[in-house]
Amino acid sequence: MNRPPRTLTERLAAFTAALAWDDLPEDVRVLAVRGFRDWLGNAAAGAATPFGRAALAAARSGGGATLVGPRAATDPLGAALVNGGASHALEFDDSHKSTFYHPGSPACAAAFAAAEAGARRGADLFAGIVAGYEAGIRLAAALGPEHYRIWHTTGTAGVFAAAAAAARTLGLTAVQTVAAFGLAGTQAAGLWEVLPDAPAAKNLHAGKAAQGGLLAALLAREGVPGPATILEGGRGLFAATVPSGLDAEAAAADLGAVWRIREITFKAYPICGHAMTPVEAALQLRPEIGGGVEEIVVHSNAISLRVAGNPDPHDGYAAKFSIPYCVAAALARGRVTQAEFEPAVLSDPHVRGLMRRVTLVADPEFDRIARTIRPARVEIRLADGREIDAISETRRGDPEQPLSAADLSAKFRTLAALAWGAKAAERVDGEIAALPDCGSVPAWAARVLSA
Amino acid sequence: MNRPPRTLTERLAAFTAALAWDDLPEDVRVLAVRGFRDWLGNAAAGAATPFGRAALAAARSGGGATLVGPRAATDPLGAALVNGGASHALEFDDSHKSTFYHPGSPACAAAFAAAEAGARRGADLFAGIVAGYEAGIRLAAALGPEHYRIWHTTGTAGVFAAAAAAARTLGLTAVQTVAAFGLAGTQAAGLWEVLPDAPAAKNLHAGKAAQGGLLAALLAREGVPGPATILEGGRGLFAATVPSGLDAEAAAADLGAVWRIREITFKAYPICGHAMTPVEAALQLRPEIGGGVEEIVVHSNAISLRVAGNPDPHDGYAAKFSIPYCVAAALARGRVTQAEFEPAVLSDPHVRGLMRRVTLVADPEFDRIARTIRPARVEIRLADGREIDAISETRRGDPEQPLSAADLSAKFRTLAALAWGAKAAERVDGEIAALPDCGSVPAWAARVLSA
Repeated sequence: MNRPPRTLTERLAAFTAALAWDDLPEDVRVLAVRGFRDWLGNAAAGAATPFGRAALAAARSGGGATLVGPRAATDPLGAALVNGGASHALEFDDSHKSTFYHPGSPACAAAFAAAEAGARRGADLFAGIVAGYEAGIRLAAALGPEHYRIWHTTGTAGVFAAAAAAARTLGLTAVQTVAAFGLAGTQAAGLWEVLPDAPAAKNLHAGKAAQGGLLAALLAREGVPGPATILEGGRGLFAATVPSGLDAEAAAADLGAVWRIREITFKAYPICGHAMTPVEAALQLRPEIGGGVEEIVVHSNAISLRVAGNPDPHDGYAAKFSIPYCVAAALARGRVTQAEFEPAVLSDPHVRGLMRRVTLVADPEFDRIARTIRPARVEIRLADGREIDAISETRRGDPEQPLSAADLSAKFRTLAALAWGAKAAERVDGEIAALPDCGSVPAWAARVLSA
Repeated sequence: MNRPPRTLTERLAAFTAALAWDDLPEDVRVLAVRGFRDWLGNAAAGAATPFGRAALAAARSGGGATLVGPRAATDPLGAALVNGGASHALEFDDSHKSTFYHPGSPACAAAFAAAEAGARRGADLFAGIVAGYEAGIRLAAALGPEHYRIWHTTGTAGVFAAAAAAARTLGLTAVQTVAAFGLAGTQAAGLWEVLPDAPAAKNLHAGKAAQGGLLAALLAREGVPGPATILEGGRGLFAATVPSGLDAEAAAADLGAVWRIREITFKAYPICGHAMTPVEAALQLRPEIGGGVEEIVVHSNAISLRVAGNPDPHDGYAAKFSIPYCVAAALARGRVTQAEFEPAVLSDPHVRGLMRRVTLVADPEFDRIARTIRPARVEIRLADGREIDAISETRRGDPEQPLSAADLSAKFRTLAALAWGAKAAERVDGEIAALPDCGSVPAWAARVLSA
């Protein structure tokens, strides 16, 4: 750029284009590799879900970029769509607590497809991933609760994250990156009307964000212009989706000084993030329930109850967005893993019976703090008349209570084994650490993922 | 469906799934074929524009669906993106006057790719096109001026049009079509912030609408559910983009009784529809201007001046959104064709000099009627002191003043010749009439478009 960045888009673009992997703080680099590993495991396992299979059927097979799950290739835009959608399909991908945003799926899927499309080095892939996390989390935070009431930030902020990730991975200039953000922003979409009836459409938000951001970067590389005011302009995303207005400057204020990737949560349960503290409180109480349960009351915040309040889910995927189901499964079985969403458990009369005893209560105090910590309190009245209760404030996997490297490796192997078998999953897990130093992402992918 | 359609989506879906080509009124069928011809010519010529080339480079080449311009193939989603974007890239595709919506690009591009993907008959392709026109125009009308202030309906209503077109062409059931609308609506996007700086991004709106609608239909065919309340639900498209609310019922009230495809305009000039009456008024005055022009005042409505008011366009594409440029070119050269947007004319000192003499004035009376007719008055003060003026109320190509079949055939041949040469353009023109009766659209495309 010949003049200092002026708009928010220009500031994000200047940051994105200049991001250098080798200059990042060590812990940021570790988190980026963890984020990629978590994404890859989710994308591999998610490809076998109904949504993953449908997206693959829709995208068909061309050539040029790796489809993570099926060990096949398609064009980069198709790969971004399928890998981005599949990686969100188990509701097990990483999340950002204060914004309810999923940073890994759009950023990693777009960056990975871009790295293959552009034959880029591992360092560019990971610089792109970090740019995508930073841009996406900042925009999700700026858009705030008024936006989130209607719009799913994993789609709307996500397409900017994917544009940042793809633009940096491809090595676009700052001017091209401005165009990429402009072309991404006019694709921003994702309506919460998909819940509760059609939660799988959430995966479409992640996949389309990844694809749209990559498309924006590819078009910008070809010279298509995009508006530099797509965020704060009078007919831009903020005006369109946050009627009361917002502080545009805040989104860029601390770029390069504060690394918000440090705030991410790696999930310990394959369920909606809003159901996680209720499950952990229920697991605390399980040893005490003895002879039987009369009533279960879950206190949480209003947003969590709106997103994950489904009282009667009809399939395993919808059950992941049901606090009543997740709490009942936790109490009945003592764990909440992918197995708890199989048809046999879903129709288990004991689980169903417990689910019908759950009442949800919105707590104004929890509302107030829901974007800092997201506690839940579970109260249980037992058949013998006793009343017990427990509270969970943060969740396993939150930055306050992080999963260890060994936990994350085990999570990856469990997920990837669903797609490739245990041996291959173990082998790929061992290869990820070297990816940032590899000279060619396509060569790495051909050797490690297509073998 | 086992119960009567309840939501607006269900009503649109029931109409779409049941639409039968052979039962349509004769003039509707004629208009659908004219719409397809106009779309095909635009898609062919538009593929050679910078946007068309960039979209093709982004989508790359896979296999399975025809790219109209380059006589090549890619996957159906890529073809919908490229053909849909390219067909809008000359700003010469058909439009719907009262809603400022472009019905042909999303509907035809999605239906054509769906027909190839599903190996459908010509009658299904055209039933899909009619469903796409009807759904798109109705939703663009329902969304109204408050939506259009920020959102480009060719993107937002367009993705529903493309979903309807693809769903009907593929032969989806009414239940699958409900899902397709739900999955389409959560992809709806397109911000007016792209004007005036990045008008080529408008093409992305048309291309992404076509691609998103087709993707929605393909996912629905694979069994992915979509919300039945995506339009009128509390977190659906209407709530998200029309804060003051709107009459959802009106959109479906006359489905199958009133054919709104009858309201479309086939453009006579390759310029923004908002610049057409100013150009025609200027052309009326040209014979009288004689020795020179001192001042040109264009009276129009406020929306037209906002969309097409660019006072100083820097390239030929931006000039299509500039009433000052288009009026100056009309006065200087006596016509407004694609040639008037070439660099030599754009930098012609005479045209530039006239352009700087143009003043735009918003007329409240014209604002009031802008969605019925869209008049412009041009007043010119001449060097010899005389003042002349003219008004144009409707535009050549509007339903009130339609282009003839011969005009449309000539328009198609001119456009298609840019892509394929004059002989091939003439041959394809002669083959279009038989397309509704062909048993296989892929076979027709292979024979007629790939030869």
